[in-house]
Order: sequence, then structure tokens, then C-alpha cells
Amino acid sequence: MDLMEKKYELFVEELKNEGWDIEKLISELMMFKFELPSWGFGDMGTRFATFHEPGAARNIYEKLEDAALVNKLTGICPTVALHIPWDKVDDWKDLKKHAENLGLKIGAINPNLFQDPDYKYGSVTNPDPKIRKRAIDHILECIEIAKILESDVISLWLADGTDYPGQDDFRDRKKRLEESLKIVYDNLPENMKLFIEYKYFEPAFYHTDIQDWGMAHLLSTKLGDKAYVLVDLGHHPLGANIEQIIAILLSEKKLGGFHFNNKKYADDDLTLGSINPYEVFLIFKELVFAVRDSELSNYAKNVRYMFDQVHSTKSKIEAMLQSVNTAQYILAQSLLVDRDKLLDYQKKFDLIGAEEYLLKAFRRDVTPLIWKFRKDLGLPENPLEYYRRSGYKVKISEIRG
Amino acid sequence: MDLMEKKYELFVEELKNEGWDIEKLISELMMFKFELPSWGFGDMGTRFATFHEPGAARNIYEKLEDAALVNKLTGICPTVALHIPWDKVDDWKDLKKHAENLGLKIGAINPNLFQDPDYKYGSVTNPDPKIRKRAIDHILECIEIAKILESDVISLWLADGTDYPGQDDFRDRKKRLEESLKIVYDNLPENMKLFIEYKYFEPAFYHTDIQDWGMAHLLSTKLGDKAYVLVDLGHHPLGANIEQIIAILLSEKKLGGFHFNNKKYADDDLTLGSINPYEVFLIFKELVFAVRDSELSNYAKNVRYMFDQVHSTKSKIEAMLQSVNTAQYILAQSLLVDRDKLLDYQKKFDLIGAEEYLLKAFRRDVTPLIWKFRKDLGLPENPLEYYRRSGYKVKISEIRG
Amino acid sequence: MDLMEKKYELFVEELKNEGWDIEKLISELMMFKFELPSWGFGDMGTRFATFHEPGAARNIYEKLEDAALVNKLTGICPTVALHIPWDKVDDWKDLKKHAENLGLKIGAINPNLFQDPDYKYGSVTNPDPKIRKRAIDHILECIEIAKILESDVISLWLADGTDYPGQDDFRDRKKRLEESLKIVYDNLPENMKLFIEYKYFEPAFYHTDIQDWGMAHLLSTKLGDKAYVLVDLGHHPLGANIEQIIAILLSEKKLGGFHFNNKKYADDDLTLGSINPYEVFLIFKELVFAVRDSELSNYAKNVRYMFDQVHSTKSKIEAMLQSVNTAQYILAQSLLVDRDKLLDYQKKFDLIGAEEYLLKAFRRDVTPLIWKFRKDLGLPENPLEYYRRSGYKVKISEIRG
Amino acid sequence: MDLMEKKYELFVEELKNEGWDIEKLISELMMFKFELPSWGFGDMGTRFATFHEPGAARNIYEKLEDAALVNKLTGICPTVALHIPWDKVDDWKDLKKHAENLGLKIGAINPNLFQDPDYKYGSVTNPDPKIRKRAIDHILECIEIAKILESDVISLWLADGTDYPGQDDFRDRKKRLEESLKIVYDNLPENMKLFIEYKYFEPAFYHTDIQDWGMAHLLSTKLGDKAYVLVDLGHHPLGANIEQIIAILLSEKKLGGFHFNNKKYADDDLTLGSINPYEVFLIFKELVFAVRDSELSNYAKNVRYMFDQVHSTKSKIEAMLQSVNTAQYILAQSLLVDRDKLLDYQKKFDLIGAEEYLLKAFRRDVTPLIWKFRKDLGLPENPLEYYRRSGYKVKISEIRG
Repeated sequence: MDLMEKKYELFVEELKNEGWDIEKLISELMMFKFELPSWGFGDMGTRFATFHEPGAARNIYEKLEDAALVNKLTGICPTVALHIPWDKVDDWKDLKKHAENLGLKIGAINPNLFQDPDYKYGSVTNPDPKIRKRAIDHILECIEIAKILESDVISLWLADGTDYPGQDDFRDRKKRLEESLKIVYDNLPENMKLFIEYKYFEPAFYHTDIQDWGMAHLLSTKLGDKAYVLVDLGHHPLGANIEQIIAILLSEKKLGGFHFNNKKYADDDLTLGSINPYEVFLIFKELVFAVRDSELSNYAKNVRYMFDQVHSTKSKIEAMLQSVNTAQYILAQSLLVDRDKLLDYQKKFDLIGAEEYLLKAFRRDVTPLIWKFRKDLGLPENPLEYYRRSGYKVKISEIRG
Repeated sequence: MDLMEKKYELFVEELKNEGWDIEKLISELMMFKFELPSWGFGDMGTRFATFHEPGAARNIYEKLEDAALVNKLTGICPTVALHIPWDKVDDWKDLKKHAENLGLKIGAINPNLFQDPDYKYGSVTNPDPKIRKRAIDHILECIEIAKILESDVISLWLADGTDYPGQDDFRDRKKRLEESLKIVYDNLPENMKLFIEYKYFEPAFYHTDIQDWGMAHLLSTKLGDKAYVLVDLGHHPLGANIEQIIAILLSEKKLGGFHFNNKKYADDDLTLGSINPYEVFLIFKELVFAVRDSELSNYAKNVRYMFDQVHSTKSKIEAMLQSVNTAQYILAQSLLVDRDKLLDYQKKFDLIGAEEYLLKAFRRDVTPLIWKFRKDLGLPENPLEYYRRSGYKVKISEIRG
Repeated sequence: MDLMEKKYELFVEELKNEGWDIEKLISELMMFKFELPSWGFGDMGTRFATFHEPGAARNIYEKLEDAALVNKLTGICPTVALHIPWDKVDDWKDLKKHAENLGLKIGAINPNLFQDPDYKYGSVTNPDPKIRKRAIDHILECIEIAKILESDVISLWLADGTDYPGQDDFRDRKKRLEESLKIVYDNLPENMKLFIEYKYFEPAFYHTDIQDWGMAHLLSTKLGDKAYVLVDLGHHPLGANIEQIIAILLSEKKLGGFHFNNKKYADDDLTLGSINPYEVFLIFKELVFAVRDSELSNYAKNVRYMFDQVHSTKSKIEAMLQSVNTAQYILAQSLLVDRDKLLDYQKKFDLIGAEEYLLKAFRRDVTPLIWKFRKDLGLPENPLEYYRRSGYKVKISEIRG
Repeated sequence: MDLMEKKYELFVEELKNEGWDIEKLISELMMFKFELPSWGFGDMGTRFATFHEPGAARNIYEKLEDAALVNKLTGICPTVALHIPWDKVDDWKDLKKHAENLGLKIGAINPNLFQDPDYKYGSVTNPDPKIRKRAIDHILECIEIAKILESDVISLWLADGTDYPGQDDFRDRKKRLEESLKIVYDNLPENMKLFIEYKYFEPAFYHTDIQDWGMAHLLSTKLGDKAYVLVDLGHHPLGANIEQIIAILLSEKKLGGFHFNNKKYADDDLTLGSINPYEVFLIFKELVFAVRDSELSNYAKNVRYMFDQVHSTKSKIEAMLQSVNTAQYILAQSLLVDRDKLLDYQKKFDLIGAEEYLLKAFRRDVTPLIWKFRKDLGLPENPLEYYRRSGYKVKISEIRG
């Protein structure tokens, strides 16, 4: 019996002693899928420089190939989000077929409303009605693309905002924003969702039209049941208690999904969990609680988990494999928190007991559980190492340059 | 003709050239009243020390006397907010009479839900139903006091929150919070408003149950038309665009009122405008715009302006006079922004023109306008200097110690 | 063989496979001692409320008794820091004897320069030379106390600063600060160190005279070799990379010691590692690297580790036991980082390899190592649970009230 | 007599009453020159988009032409900073002549150490000695260019840092940084200064090698008398008291110069004073105090003032004219603070008196003083309006596209 088998055996013994059902844990692990962003496989950078990585995917076909590899090695990334027009092709049906051949489905469609010179002073909030129309039309185009690709989510991030006091009128902009989103919403098919993302700042530096969860929630509430809030972990002021925001949105059934990443300062777009893994654990805890809560379960199971990271100094495919592994690892730890046991401490105002109970789960080495999960699915034990040894990078570097 | 008269003459000439109506400006100035907090006249401090100021008011009767003096010298502070139980008396009618004799009315009633040992782990969110009941009962008591004192605002700040992950359940607390506030709201007389204050952090250091405008807005929307959001300028994360939050709440007719102060780091409770006077100007601009906007005017005129500052190193009455003066001074500057003129720049995407137009108003020396305002009302030209020369402080120091 | 024994066996097998020497790790663990602050055992609070905990120590004799218990149960807290005048007694020799009888030594002496009304506008920076002299004399008195108690560290935290622009002159204050510290330094015995603490803000809210490591370093460099910088983990702006500051100060041999705690927003004084345990791990990594580095080892071994937390909602003795356990647990994880192995990744610009190597150590369940450490020393396996079962709290509550 | 003449007359009367010497104020105004950055005239943007402005300068010759115009209209911008290799030309002497023909001199030379793929993992701190050498060689090349152009400042901003824990070793990087800078410093001619800039974060998102003034000061102190700290207003954590840092560096004679801009969140690179003009006033106050202080005057007069802003949504030349105007306007206000008068309040602990004295200067409408300054020099009364009416932009747009 090798070391990992011994570790697994001991892990099972320990968990069973504590009353956990290993099979159930593994089936819960299976429920959580992580969507890959097409743009995570191409070169990106900061405003100071973008460095080319040899072999980086150059178009959506190559991006899907890289994503398919990540899915093949991890088993939990069956969908890919697209960014329009970055991923625009002439023949959407061919792209869909390409994805299916790779074992993938298309996830959220992300309209781009910040790159075109027309959007210099805003897209759907622009004082100029022609530009607003152009922006709305682009989103409607994305809805049509989503229909063809059988995607059921339009994920909207607006860069809209102003750089200087007096540049525009807050209330006028809010009115235009609401009117524009209303048109979009009214054109949404019954089975399609609209995710509204918020961001504290950047690229606008004085105000951002959808600056926080409160504003995204206000908008989505006015729109209706198909509108949800999307939470990007890097889009908050420093110190924000993100797990609380998650809990609030879950309780209102208004959390649509996530853009996972990590930050230390601003919207740094670093790898999930690279700065504060405990925070990720506390966020997953809320999600696991909701999925296990009969009142919320049906809704909560449909919350979408996507990555949105910039891999400018890390190797892109490796960074994605690392991120998926981290997400699953911390998720596994958070599965080991039983809400009822925690409530026992909470009822007694036993702060230390409650905290130590959480820390017990967070400090747990759940490698054996992940090992079993992958073994059952016939996946490599360590996807990252497997990839490194596979020679894939050398091969695509030769082809793609 | 003395210097100030010459300055006023030139000021009038300049403003008339620009098309302003001086009489209208002065009548607008008159519309804005600032409520004084009783607690601003007593000794307060930080967690490290509270220093006694000789002559500081020792009880609500003395606090009202000091407030009356501030009102007498400035002419724009006719109401005083109370803090229960700090200002609790046996005979409320006598207190009301005392206030009236001093030319004052009672403003907002502020329940205290943080000081009693029972509230160690929360008041209206406490897991213990007995403590929740106690907290609710205290607010209901405050409603009764408000009725007697003919106050029409209950101003609720909750210190509720947790210090550590796992200490309590976010969704359970939110549910209790909503249920408790519902009981309070249902007991509110028709003509009374409930202001719900939010705060980013402190005294709880992991999470605060009402942490931002989004949460206060969500709660007040669920409650109904008598519930409003109260904005304390010091209760935001660093960088928050407060004027935008004001504009959003105004557009939703959900801004109830303010706690004015200033911050550099956290909830520093410094004098209004002492760190960033331009921000105060930008906030007032939104309020002036709303008051002048026929769609919002009736509602916006009822927004309440209160101070909530800690004068631990400044002399208390002087600090209040200084604050009121600053508020009126910056308000006067913001009156000199014409929204239509600003819109002209905005429509043309003339950021610099718009900004320079704002700066023209902000850089204006409005001393002559304030001078005229005070002269018309028979007030001292410089209330702070008048007070300093009056000997009031020496006198009360002898009496109060 | 019970579960923990099996876990330890497997742990040893795994570590040996990786080339670690278990005995050496345990001897390294033994090198790190954590100083307890006397004030951590008494009631403390926020500016809004201080709640009494039944049984909380009322004086320095009782505080030492509680500290002795924590040391007895953890084996790694042999010293206690004092705060003067909070811990002032008439007979210092008797106090010293009391400590020794309890198996304790006196650690750092902390002068209090913020509580007295004289210090309202500063202590050693005060414009008034009489107040400066008073402050300096108090520190000199602390040096005398330290001599009697055989303490070798004066740990200086200044609350000095201003609340408003214009309140005082920055350069004049700096000059007074340098002059005052010079007098103190010149009175320091040869074997005594001066630790200079910095803090970003609070209780002063416009500027703090020693606001960051740069200022504390500048001062300590001017003073000389006996002056060092003290790092309180909660005294930085949000986002500060504390581990980098540690590395800089270590490389300059100017890091004197720590005040351990954790923060989410400001100087929250929460339990070490309660918000971001990974950050604590990254800090310990730097310390372990320095202790293992022959160039720095002799110096680095003398860095002092103290707690400075406010236990206002947690039970005090339990919170201390929890903190010491957390410190040792994360230290043990950081011992499992080999700098040379990390350098191999760094040389190859393998960011992901380096990060995964760190995460491997951080994700490690080091419970078996701590278990062995405690077993060897005859300590309880779980000090916190042992304390809870001991009935100590009930007993002292009856005595102390 | 037109309105401005009347305003000036009244301004003079008022200032004379207060004991000010108008001639002296105007000569002090003249002492402060502001350096223009060549890169401020070309298209720049955020990581999300760069928008082209018609007529934006395309090369250093055109940039100098635009800068010359700004200097001609404002009279206080006689130097231009260069960025190498952005501004690299084959014939430096020709460029120098071009500048001189335009009435300009070359200011600071800024090496670019972040754009080349070689610098992906650092420049002078890079683990690879070949890349370090390349970076050092580039700075040495800049020194040679500076010699030819008769510039006396090398202004060094390093983007060096890491994105992830474990990516590199803090102490090793610091050692390499010190060694590299030593080589640079040793190659500096006697009359040339080295400015070392610091930045809290970005483009590196885990740590930055020169992260704050403390680190820049430590480095410059080790190097020697020709090394100074450069302060970019946008490179601090939120809440940083920049005027205090300025005062500290002035007292140590280690402040070299500024990069002026403004921020609300991160390194937003907005127009100076656009977010908090009062902060700019408080900074200028420290500079004016130093220039008027006989102990510091000779040194302080040589502090360099440069702009470093990104004009992505504002018209570039207009933004520069606006910035220069703002700088001079706020400088003029700060000249109206007399340190001795302020000290009188400070000595009496009269916080409110001191603050109101500052506010009196800040609230002053100094337009008449600026008007007189420009009139005396034969400059347009309002450079920005003059430029707008001049048709320059249309003309260059036709030429440059």
C-alpha cells in the first residue's frame, strides 16, 4: 500500500469517526463545476506591458482546445465562457460543433462594451442616444449568438463611469442605465439569464455606474426574475466582507454567479486563493450551506462558478490547472463544515468553539479526498504535474509560435 | 464703506453679470437647516482616552442650552437630536418645554443598542429572542418618547455584527434583522420616519449586519415608504464615491438624512470638511440639484442634515460653530452651480469645461453672501469669534466644572 | 494504536521521504517563544463599550497567574509584558518574586503615554516642554523598573499625532521626537533594547508622528544599535505587504519584535490568523529563513514575539490559548519550507512551482508534529480543551467576580 | 475699470491690511516652475483601452512643440522630462537644439525598465544577472543622454516586484537592488541627481521592491548625497498623509521632486487637485514653509515639480494647461499661509484657530493675484480659453491626424 492509499484509509477512518459520509462528500464535490473563460488562454497584461507566452492560444478555436485539455485533466470544467467580439467567428454552428467535439459546451456570453472608441464616455449610459443604441444592439447580438450556441447566460460587465467630478450627471446616467437594461431584459428569451456585474473602480476613476452589489441588486430587482448579480472577487473595496455579500444575495436568490480570482490591492486578477485562501473557504462555506439547505437548494445549485484571471506572469494553461485544483481543494475543505454543528456553538455564543470548528475543516489535508475523486473518474492524480510532463506546451509552441 | 461692504458690492455685480438672482440664493440658503446632536456637547473620546473639557455639558438640559446658543449665533440649527438612554429624563414634557423656551425643537430620537452588556453579541439580530425583544422594546419606547416630544424621526444605528468567522450565521442574522425591523416599522405612527444607518465596520470587526447603503436600502425597501436610509459620511470604505450614493438614493427617494462629519482613515468623526472640503461641495451639489428639480423637490426638501462628530481635542461648542459655518459656506458655494449650464458641457463631452465650471463655484469666496445672510437675520458676522469674545465658556466652566 | 499515533507515524514517513529531520523540526519549534501581554487578561473594549467578563484578572498579580496557566498548558510562553502604570505596584521585587514562583519572567516594559490628560496633544512630541519632560521622565522610570525586574526591552508605542490640518508643525514635531528619544536612548543600559512601534492611524486621525516602518526605521537608525523597530500586524494600511517589511527589517538587522494580532479593516486587534492565516504563514516563513541563515541567525533568534490583542467578545484566557496554539501551528507549517528548494523554483522563474511548494507546506496538517512536541514536554494534547474541562474559569469567577 | 481690476484692487487692499507684501508674493510665485512630461502629450490609456485623440503628438519633436505652447501660455513650464526609449532619437544634439528653439530645456531623463519582455520578472532586481546588466546599462545610457542634453536628473521608477507569494526572495531582491543602484550611482556625474520613485503597487500585485517612501529613503541614504526620493502623489495607500511624508523628507533634505497627479482609488493618474484640492494645498504649504525657512531654503528651492498624469478621456494639451493653472492657483493660496502666525495658534493648542487660519487661505479667491502675475508677464489672462480659441488643435489635427 503506497503512502497516498494509507493516507486515504486514515482519512476515511477519521471522517467516519466524525460521522461524515464519504460517498456523499464525493457526490457533492461532483456537483460543483467551474467554467473556464476563453480569454484566460490568450496573452493579457497590465497597462504597462503585455508579454507574449510562446504557445498562447491565438483564437477561439485554440482557446477551446486548451480549455478542453484543462477539462480533460480535471473533470470539472465542461463549459467555456466567450467574449464578443474577441471570440467572434463567421460560422457559430461550426464553433459549437468544435466545442462539442472537444467535450465542451459554451457557457456565458460576455459582450464587450469598453474597447470601441465609441465607448470612450460610456456604453449603455452614454449621453449620446446613438451610442447607447449601438451598445444595446451589441448585447442583443450577443443574445442571438447565445441562442445559436445554446448558452443560457448573458454576463454583463460595464466599464461605464466617469473620471472627473462634473463629467456627467449621476441621476441622468442611472436613468439611461435602467432604460437600456430594460430593453435588453425584454429581449431575453425565457430560459436565458442576465448577470449584472459590479466593480468598485477601474477603468473609470471617479465613479463607476454599477459600483457595488447594492447597485447591481437594485437594477436586477427592478428588471425581474431572470436578472441576477455576478460577483467578481476582485471588484470590492479593501476589507469588504465578500462572504457576507454572498449570503445576502443567496438569501434573496439574486446571486447569479462568480468571477473567481484574488486580489491584494485593487482588481489584481490574481489566481484564486493566492492571497487569502481562508476567505475563499469562507465563501465556499456559504455556497455549500445554501446547496444543502432545502429552502435554497434548487436555486443554489444553479449558481455559476467562472474564473476571470489575468495570467501575465504565469504560464496560462498551468495557471488554469492550478486554479481549478485550488478551487476544488478549498471546496472540499468547506464541505467538511456541518452547519448544524456550527449552529450549536453559535447558539451558546461560543465564538472560540465555532472558530476552531471552522479552522479544523480549513486546516484539514483533503488531498486524499481529491485523490479518490480523481481516481474514481480516471483522472490524473495531479493534473498540473501530468500536464507538465505531457509535452503539450512544447508542441503547441511549435505550432502557434 | 468698509471692506466687506465693498466685497459684497463686487460679489453682487459679478453674480448678476452671470445671471444669478441674489435674493433667490439667500432664500435657498435659508431652506437648509442643520440639526445638532445632544451628544456633541458632552465629553467623548477614543478607546484610548476621553479627556474632560471644562464646562462641557453634563446632562441634556445643559446640552440643550449649548445647542440653543449655537442656534442663536448661526440661525440655522433649530433642532436637536437626542440619544436614549443618554438623554433620558423622568419628565419628558418638562424637557420639551425647556427646549421650546430655548427656541429649539427636538429632532431625531436615537436609540442606543450597543452599550448594555446584553448587546455584547448583538441587539435586534441577537440569536437570543429575549435580547431581541429587549432591543425592540427599547426602540418602541423611543417611538413613545418621540410622540411626546413631537419628533418625527427614529434614527437607527446598529452596532450589530461579529468579530470572527463562524461566530454567527449571516442568513439567520439577516432574517432576525428583518423580522425585528418589521415589528418596529409596524409600530411607527403614520407621520414618523425610520432612518436606517449603515456602517462599513466598527465596533464589530469581521462583519456588520448593515454594512453599506445597499443593505440599508434593501431593508428600507422591504419595510415601506416610511423607511429611509441615513448616510453618515464616515461609514464608508476608503475611496467610496459618496456623492454617487447620495444621487442614487435621491433618485429612489430613499435618502432620509445625513450624519455629517469627515474622515481620513476610518470612522474618525472629524469636523465636516476638515479633510476633503471638495467632497462636501460635490455632495451638496447633488442635494441642491434635487431641491431645485421639480420632480424631486418636495421630497428632497425634507432630507435631514445632522452632525455626528466627536470633539475630543477641539473645544466642543466652538467645534459645533465651526462645523455649522463650514456646512453653510460650502452649501453657498454649491448653490452657485447651475445644473443646466453643467449639462451643456456634459452634452458636449467637455470634461474640462464642466470641471472648471464646478471649480469656479468651489473656488468662489462666498463670505459676502454669508455676511449678507447673517446681516439680514441680525446674526453676528462671525459666530465663532463672537462666541470666543462672549466669555460663555468661562462662565459655564465655573458653573459646570 | 489510536488515530493520532497512526497519523504521526504516517506524518513521519511522509516527511522522511521528503528529507526532513523530525528531531530538528521539533528543536526548532522549541526555539520560538511567545510573550503574553498582561493587559490581555483584563477587560478591554471598543470606544462604544467594554463588557466585563466574569473572572477577568483585576490586577497584575492575577494577570500573572492567568499568564502562568497559559504557559503551563502550552510550554512556550515564559515571559509576560507589563504596561506601566496599569501594572504599577509598590514593591517591584515582590512582583518579580511572584512571577518567578509562577515560572515566569518579565518581558517588555510598555510605558503608557496616551492616557493622562497631559498627553491630550502629544507626549514626547508635545509643543509644551514640561509635558515632554514628563513623558521622558515616565520612560526613564520604566527603564528603572525594567532594571529591577531584569527586563531587557522598553517597548514604545506613541499615540502622538494630530487630528486636524494645521494643528501642529510636522517638522517641529519630528525634531522634538528625535530629541526626546535621544534622551531616552542615552539613558538606556548597555544590555537593554528600545523597541519603536509605528501605527498608520488612531487615536490621532489626521497624522501620526510615527506612522510607518520607514519612520520607525529612520528614528532607530539615528539612535543606534540598541534601537529596533517593533511591528504590530494591525498597524498598517490595508494591503500592506507585511512579510516584505519583515524581510527588509531583518536584512537591516533592525526588526526588534512583534505585536501579533489580526485585522480586517483597521487596528481591529483580533486573534492572530483569524482573518488571513496564510499571511501569518508568509511572515513566519521570513523569520524561519532568517533564523536558519548563518549570516542572520544570531541576531534573528533574538527577535521577540508578543501578542497584543483585544479580547472583548472572546473569553480572555481561552483566546490566549487559542492564539498561542495558532501561532505554533502556523510556525510549524512554515518550518516545512526549505529555502533552497524554493530558490530552485525561483531561479527558473517557475512561479507556479514555487507557489505550489509553499501551499504544500501551508496545507499540511501539522497536528501530529504539535502532538509530538506536547507529548515530549508532558503538556496536554489540546491546551484549550484541557482548560475548558479544568473548571479554572468557574473557580476564578467566584474569587474575582 | 473692469471687474477684474476692481477685484485686484480690493484684493490688494485686503492683503495689505493683513500685512502681506504683494510684490514678494508675485516673486515667490515666479520661483515655482513645473516640468512637463513628454509622454503627457501622446495617447495613453488603461489596460482596457487606449483612445486616440486627433492631433495627439506622435513623436518627441511634436511633444516638445505642444509643451512649448503650454509654456508660452503659462510662463512657468520651461522644462520637459523625457522617457527613454519612447523619446529616443538618432541625433540628440538636434533634439536639444529643437527644444532650445522652442524656448525649452530638457528636464529629467526617465529610463524605461518595464516594457521589454526581458523585464517580465524584474529589471535591476531580476534573478538573472544578464537582465540586471541590461537594465543597468540602459540607465547608464540614460546618464549619457542626460549629459548631452544637459539634464541633471535621472528619475528612476522601477516596476519591479512579484505577483505571487514565493515568486522570489525578498532579501535576495533587495540585495540585488542595492548592488545595481550602487553601480548606477557610481557612474553619476557630480552635478547629476538620482531620483528614486516608490509605488505601493502595480504593475506587480503581490509586492513591489520599492513600495514606499521608507524604502526609497533607505536606498537613497545608503547611496549618498546625490540620491533623492521622488514622490508621485498617486503611489500611496489610501489615507496616506502625503504632506507629512513631504515634511519628513524635507527635514532630511532627501525630497528630490514630485510627480503631480491625483487619485481616488489607486494610481489613477488623474489631474492634480481633481479629487482633493485641499490636500494639494497642504502639500504646497510644506514646500512654501521650507522655501521660506533659512535652514532649508537653498535646498528646498531645488525641489522639482513635474506632472505625471494620464489624459485618456481629457484633451491632452487642455488637460496640461488646466493642471498647470491648478498648480499655480493652489500654490498662490498656500503662499498666503504665514508659518509664524500659524505657530501662534499651535503654541496655544488652538486647533480651531489654526484650522480656520489655513481655511482662510484655502478659501481665498486668488484669481486677482494670478491675473496680475500673467499681466506682468504679458501672458493670456486665461491660458485654457486662449488655447481653445486659438484653433491650434484643429490645425495640428489636420497635420498629425
